[in-house]
Order: sequence, then structure tokens, then C-alpha cells
Amino acid sequence: MHGYFYPRTATGRASLIPPPPWYYSGDLVTIEYRTDPDRVRELLPEPLELAEQDPGAVALIWADWQSCSGSGEELLDPVRSQYKEAFAVVRCGYRGRTYSRCVYIWVDKDFAVARGIHQGYPKKLGSIHLTRPHPYGPAPRFAPGARFGATLAAADRRLAQAVVTLREPSPTGGFVNGHPMAHHRWLPAIEKGGGQALAELIESGAAAFEGGQAWVGDAELTLFESPTEELAELVVREPIAAYVRQVGVVWDGGTLLEKT
Amino acid sequence: MHGYFYPRTATGRASLIPPPPWYYSGDLVTIEYRTDPDRVRELLPEPLELAEQDPGAVALIWADWQSCSGSGEELLDPVRSQYKEAFAVVRCGYRGRTYSRCVYIWVDKDFAVARGIHQGYPKKLGSIHLTRPHPYGPAPRFAPGARFGATLAAADRRLAQAVVTLREPSPTGGFVNGHPMAHHRWLPAIEKGGGQALAELIESGAAAFEGGQAWVGDAELTLFESPTEELAELVVREPIAAYVRQVGVVWDGGTLLEKT
Amino acid sequence: MHGYFYPRTATGRASLIPPPPWYYSGDLVTIEYRTDPDRVRELLPEPLELAEQDPGAVALIWADWQSCSGSGEELLDPVRSQYKEAFAVVRCGYRGRTYSRCVYIWVDKDFAVARGIHQGYPKKLGSIHLTRPHPYGPAPRFAPGARFGATLAAADRRLAQAVVTLREPSPTGGFVNGHPMAHHRWLPAIEKGGGQALAELIESGAAAFEGGQAWVGDAELTLFESPTEELAELVVREPIAAYVRQVGVVWDGGTLLEKT
Amino acid sequence: MHGYFYPRTATGRASLIPPPPWYYSGDLVTIEYRTDPDRVRELLPEPLELAEQDPGAVALIWADWQSCSGSGEELLDPVRSQYKEAFAVVRCGYRGRTYSRCVYIWVDKDFAVARGIHQGYPKKLGSIHLTRPHPYGPAPRFAPGARFGATLAAADRRLAQAVVTLREPSPTGGFVNGHPMAHHRWLPAIEKGGGQALAELIESGAAAFEGGQAWVGDAELTLFESPTEELAELVVREPIAAYVRQVGVVWDGGTLLEKT
Repeated sequence: MHGYFYPRTATGRASLIPPPPWYYSGDLVTIEYRTDPDRVRELLPEPLELAEQDPGAVALIWADWQSCSGSGEELLDPVRSQYKEAFAVVRCGYRGRTYSRCVYIWVDKDFAVARGIHQGYPKKLGSIHLTRPHPYGPAPRFAPGARFGATLAAADRRLAQAVVTLREPSPTGGFVNGHPMAHHRWLPAIEKGGGQALAELIESGAAAFEGGQAWVGDAELTLFESPTEELAELVVREPIAAYVRQVGVVWDGGTLLEKT
Repeated sequence: MHGYFYPRTATGRASLIPPPPWYYSGDLVTIEYRTDPDRVRELLPEPLELAEQDPGAVALIWADWQSCSGSGEELLDPVRSQYKEAFAVVRCGYRGRTYSRCVYIWVDKDFAVARGIHQGYPKKLGSIHLTRPHPYGPAPRFAPGARFGATLAAADRRLAQAVVTLREPSPTGGFVNGHPMAHHRWLPAIEKGGGQALAELIESGAAAFEGGQAWVGDAELTLFESPTEELAELVVREPIAAYVRQVGVVWDGGTLLEKT
Repeated sequence: MHGYFYPRTATGRASLIPPPPWYYSGDLVTIEYRTDPDRVRELLPEPLELAEQDPGAVALIWADWQSCSGSGEELLDPVRSQYKEAFAVVRCGYRGRTYSRCVYIWVDKDFAVARGIHQGYPKKLGSIHLTRPHPYGPAPRFAPGARFGATLAAADRRLAQAVVTLREPSPTGGFVNGHPMAHHRWLPAIEKGGGQALAELIESGAAAFEGGQAWVGDAELTLFESPTEELAELVVREPIAAYVRQVGVVWDGGTLLEKT
Repeated sequence: MHGYFYPRTATGRASLIPPPPWYYSGDLVTIEYRTDPDRVRELLPEPLELAEQDPGAVALIWADWQSCSGSGEELLDPVRSQYKEAFAVVRCGYRGRTYSRCVYIWVDKDFAVARGIHQGYPKKLGSIHLTRPHPYGPAPRFAPGARFGATLAAADRRLAQAVVTLREPSPTGGFVNGHPMAHHRWLPAIEKGGGQALAELIESGAAAFEGGQAWVGDAELTLFESPTEELAELVVREPIAAYVRQVGVVWDGGTLLEKT
């Protein structure tokens, strides 16, 4: 039987995702702000702790990706390589180190959901849109005053919308998502009331990264209530900054921190 | 932290799926045929074996569901309850018993993908359509000569299409999907080349079932090649029969057979 | 050149819609209420007038359709026959007669958009969901206390949601959508500022109709604001009633009332 | 009543499309080839004639657009500005001039369908994907050997797929789509068998254009049969060339050539 993920077959060709490494080209819109640290704490299972510095910092990130396996073949059938996502990242402490942690995430393709199951990103399906920079016509360039929109919906409800106005080049694209990720991989036991069949705390991060000049500016961000989502609980108390950047990333596996 | 599935939060409200039991109302189109038993064997990991009788039997099933948790609230916001699926089922032997086993499945909602991760159904996203019976207008009633179409596509390619013509009432809705399911739940280790973090063989099945009169007839079925799918390897050697039926089902957990 | 609609070709096979008659099987959820008659009047271009009786009456209707041409072939490839819609209907007077008029409508397939262009329904794309009655499992039967949900979204924003609770059988499925339709067919001139290339007031209605027992009950209805929609301007002042019914309909053309 | 398109309201805010001018930023993949000129002729209604030179030339074009009205507001809510399309263009003669003409086109948003109704593009909904150039990661740059994929599906069937390999910069992005467009705007009479209520031959084209360096290369192109499409009738007899380019375009109305 072959196949990195299900369905496993004689050839492995049908596997929903290929083995890593996975390669990504993408456009990012990142909005950082401070929420009530209690809202972050309640999303951190033990033994994770609030980050020591700026514990209420949140990054809400929109990304428009083209991704592929080592063969690159998905890029030539782009329904298999292109997807968009929006996700919320906080920071936390574990054994004296600071980690980033994705607490909510929505994507628009099944292969992205499956990669999330593997990497510990709690992926749901959503409808994600973000303005892309473009060199011609009305879409924005990287320039002072350029504006980028970003929206997120799931189950036919808008969950977040933002407009970012660029000010100037920036040495950084934000700090909240800049650490290794500390994620859980959980799966309930098949027996009713049987606890967890899998419960791991894992660490992962980019195996390689390249990026263009980041630009920084300000965001108008609105979060909306939904009966099935809790993103809006991460209420905006104080804006930090917003960033737009184009990047290339490689992901190639992680490390088990502990079974929980 | 609460939540049957991810994301886990202080309230559990955001969990992609609620705890079982899960309740389903649905319309089913089932097409049974015989393929080369070698094509079935190569989809059965050890210690599963070919079924002793009719080992090449396959059921290709389309379902149009309305599903909910015990609260029933999803039925009142039907974007959260309605979904469609198409799946291929074979039979296998394990410790002297005969099981059904879903080898391929496509659904069109994220909560259905997540339930599949839990139940060991290898779910991908697809575009699934099937004619529903209706008492008025041009859609078919349950009657001799009534015709039902069923189609499946994924990644912008059609994978299967069928037309079923009813002949008469039937005491059964098919036999291939009639046993408890023997499914694997696999998740690769986060370390590259690290084998499996979870590898379980589990058994599950309906906790309760009700159904209307099944009708039997004949199907014209075509399977199509795709670079990312292997459904067409289950080539149609000999038709068995086709069935249309309306059912109600409850699912409420399963049993671990063994860690593999 | 052949083809009832575009694209026109040597065979007509590619036409987005076939010639009428068009046949429909469907499930309907209808919610009737009274709004401020001024909100209705401002949607009625001259020479249409407010209906004399109950001029503020509105019907908000959700429908889950299976539709086809005379050949019925679309029913066997149901991606070509199934669609859902939600629409708002008011009444108006014209030359002493009372007409129904669809003022807003959303559908989820292109062939439905094209039929609307022909029939004068102002169709946009939306995401429409409604609970369907079902004889088994948790979905509702036609019975006292049965509850049906209905929702509408467009451009990733929820525009309307409702829950209908049935009380009893009803001799009618509502009155607002019960008259012939008085619709405009407008197309701007291709020249900028050139007025209308087509401006017709037409009448149409069902060429044949059959239906099951209607049930009446009460609705909780909420309309939501959107920057690109005005449905919420038809504010709910007073509920009338809500209905669920299964129907079969034939549409076979209409009549030009006047060029405007 | 206000509104450039339907639905018309007191404010015009709900109109599916705003008045021109319309502004576009986009990435284009263009594949030009020669088909049997008879296949082109049968798509040209009188008085249009085959182009005198290279009458069998076809351009199959994929575009990934961000578009907006004069206010630019759609760019900040990008679900309202972003769409993709794939379309087939031929050339024709009319009164001694050469025109381009779109004979088939698929888009993925309703506002794009409505603009097509106005401009005479025979738009259907489809699923369109094309590789976008990107400066980082695995997606291609503009460089010799860079490869771009492009695919089209409608009604759950793949209609076309292509891979373009770039060779070198080019002074042009193709010639088939380089003329003013000669399009028909047709709408059948509401009366059954009543002929056409609107039948116009119109001319339109870009009011302004800017573009980056075009690159030329070769394409592998496959067209697929479908029961509802005739694109594959434009069989590839001889490849011409393929192009990738980024552009900005303004559209601001056209001219009536004649009523037909």
C-alpha cells in the first residue's frame, strides 16, 4: 500500500497530499493587534503558557498561495496548486521558548485541509479573498497609500474584513507569526467517550524562506459574530500594524515535542 | 479546553464537528458491479483479506444528506446540515468476519470531511449530483421506468457518471455496503520519514437505521481517468444491480479493532 | 446559426438554455409579511402602481428545483437541472389588473441566470439553502411543529435567514406570488449614456401547475444589510404567514405588455 | 428608478454592475492556433465574413482579473473585483474591416456574466485556473523555460487544458484578439416563437491599455468534448504560438454597428 495520506492504494497516486517537502509562492496580508490576554490564554492548553512579552498580540493573516510538491506538477494544473487561506496566530511559551500558534484557520481546497490535519492547523473551509498587488491597471502597487482589502467568510457568513493602507517599506512583516509553530494534533478515539486516540504537541516551521520587501501600514479591521465561530472573541483592543509582502516558503516536516 | 474536534476553545462552540450521535436523512443511489478481485485486493492492507464470496463486488453509492447533531440545530441553518457524497465500497474479511470498507469517497462540505477523518472514510472534496425523487413535475417518482442520474467530479474533472432505470420494488438496497465498516485511521508522524503517528483499524456502523421501500433496476455506469484518482481502476467487469432508496441513519461511534 | 440563447452555433447544442417549455419539480418555503408600502412603491417603475389591497405585502420565497427541457435529459445529468433560488415578490397594479413582480432574486447556476434574463427576473448569484422535507431521519415531515430553515447569502454576506414552524394544512401557499408576473426586460445601449437598447414590460406565468398539500405556519425572519443589496429595505413590519409546499410547474413563454 | 443594470431601485445601489468605465488589472495566458476555417465560418452570422488573412486563426485566452468601477471600491472587497475567465476568439470581416469576435467564454462571477450580457460576450459560468507569475517560491517568473498551466471546466467536465513554456520576450501578445470586437447582443422575444426582441451587432474595445513585456513560447493544448459545449469543434490543426503578459485595461462603452 502506498500513499502519504489517504486514500492508500497500490500506487499512491490517489493520495490527497504528496510527501513533503511542500513549496509555496504567496502574497500575504498580515494585521497585528492586541486583544485581551485572557482571550489568548483560554486558547492555550497546558502546558502552553501565555508569552511573557506582549501576551495579547494577535496576527490575522490572509494568504493567496500557489503550492506544489517536489515535482512541481501541481503548478501546471493550477486547480491543484492554488488556494487561499485566512488564519489567526497568537504566541505562547513552552519550556522557556516562545512559539507561534495558529488558533483558527480557513482554507478553500481539500489538499490544504489535509496538510493542516498533518501540521496541526485547525483548518475549516472558508471563502477567502485578498487584493493582490499588480503592476498595471487599478490594482495596487507597493507604494505609499496603496490599499489592500481582505475578507473571510464561512458557512455563508462574513467573519472578518479589513482594508490595509500602506505607508512605507518595513524591515519586518510582523512578529506574531515569526516563531516556530507549537501545534496540537488531536483525534478523538473511535469509541464514544473514549478520550483521544492521538494527542501530540508538535513543533514545525519553514524549512526555507525568501521574501520581497515588506511594506507596513495601518488596517481597519472588523470581526463579525457567527454561531459556529469564535474568532470575534479575539476582540481588537489596540492595533499594532499591518503588512503586505510576497514570499516563497518550503515546509519539510516538524518535530514531536510531547504526547499529551 | 472544549471541542470534540478542532479548533478547541474555552466553549467548544467553534469545533468543526459536534460529538456523536450524528443523525442523517438521505436519498441513496447505489450501483453494484463486479470488478477484477485483484483490484480490490490491492486496496486491502494486511491483515484484511478478500471476502470469500463474490470478492470483486463493488458498490458505488451517491447520497444526498441532511444531517445534524442531537440538538438538530444544523437542520435550521441548512448550509451546516446538507451535503452530498459519492463513495466506493468493497468487502473484506478480518478474523473470519466479513466487513464493508469504503476505499474512495468525495463530499462537498468541511464538516463531512472532518467526520470522515474520525470514522476512517478517506474523504476528499468533490462535486456530487444525483437526481432526487419528487412527487410533482418532471423529477422521477419511485415507479417502473423511472430514471435517476448521478455524477461525480473532483479537481474540475468528471470521475463517474451513471443513469439508473428502476424496474421494481426490492427487498434489499444492495449487499456490498451491508456489513460493519472496517476502516483505517492513519496519520503520518510529523517527522519526515517518521512512519505513522496513528494507525488504527476500527469498526463502525449505523447505530440505528430506518428506510423506505428500496427499488431495484439497471445502471449505465462510466468511470473516467484522472491523474489524481484511481477510482477508474475498479473497472466494471459485470453489472450486478442498482438501487434507489430513502433512509434515516444514526451514527454513534465505533470500536478499535487493532493498532497496526 | 442555431441556439435559443447564446452562444449561437451551427447546431445550437452549446446554447446556455434550450427553448421553452421548461419543466420544474420543487420544494418551496414562502414567508409573507407586510413592509412599508413606500418601500414597495419605489421599486415599481411607471406605469406600474401599488396594488390596491394590501400594498405592502411581500413574499420572500426559497425554492429547491430540479428543472429540465422537454427532452428531460438535464434530469439525468443533474448538475444541469438542480438549482436553488431565493426571491422577493411584491404585487402591483397595471391597467386595472393586479400582478406579482419579482424585485430581487438570487440563484446558484448559470442556466437559471439566463432564464431570468429572458423572463425579466433580476437574477444574481447567491448561496441559497432550505431544509427539505424527508420521510426518514431527522429532517422534517409535513406535520404540526415541523421546522424548516432557509438562508440566503451573496458576495460572502448573509442577506436573510428564517425558520418556519408548521401549524396545519392550508388551502393556499400564499397570495403575493399568485398573480401573473409583470416584469421588465432592460438592457442598456452599448453607447455610453445611450439610454436603453431594450425596455419592455412583459407578462408571464406558469403554463401548468400541480402541487401537494400546502402547510401554513409562522416564521422568524431576519434580513441583513449589505453594501451591494437592498433587500433589507423591505423591512418586516408585520408577519402574515409562512408556507411549505411541493410543486410541479411548466413555463412556456409570456406576452409583451408594452415597450417602455 | 436607478441602476445601470438590474435590479433597479430607488438608489441604484443593488445594481449587479455599475456604469462604465470599468477598470481591469490582469494576467493573461494566450494560445493561438489554426483550426479548419469552416469551423470559424459557421460561428459567424451574416453579414460577418471570414477574415481574409489567416481565417482559421483562433486565440484561446485565460485571464485572472481584478476589476472595478471608477470608485475603485470593489478592489477593497475583492470578492466583488476578482474573477477568472477563459474565452475563444476568432477574427471576421465586416464592411471591409477586420474584427475580433469572442465565440465562447466562461467566467466565475455573476458581475462578469452581466458585463458580458451588455458587451455581447456569450458568458457561461465555468471553473477557470491559470498559473500566475510570482517573484518568489516555485511559481514561475518571466524567463526562458518558465511554464504556466491553464485549465477550463464547466458543468463538472474539463473542457480545455494547456501548458505554456516561455521562450523569449515578444513584441506582441498575439494578433487574433487585437482588433475591435464585433459582437451580437441577442435576446429572444418573450412570446414563444416570437423571434428576437433584441438583435444588435455592436463594436467595442479597450478605451485604454497598458501592458508589461509579453513573452512568447509554445503550448501543449487539449480540448475535450462535452454534451453541452462546442469548443472542441475548434480543433487544433496547427499551433501558432503562446503568450503570457500582465496588462491593465479600461472599457468604456461601444458603438452600435447595426440592428440585425
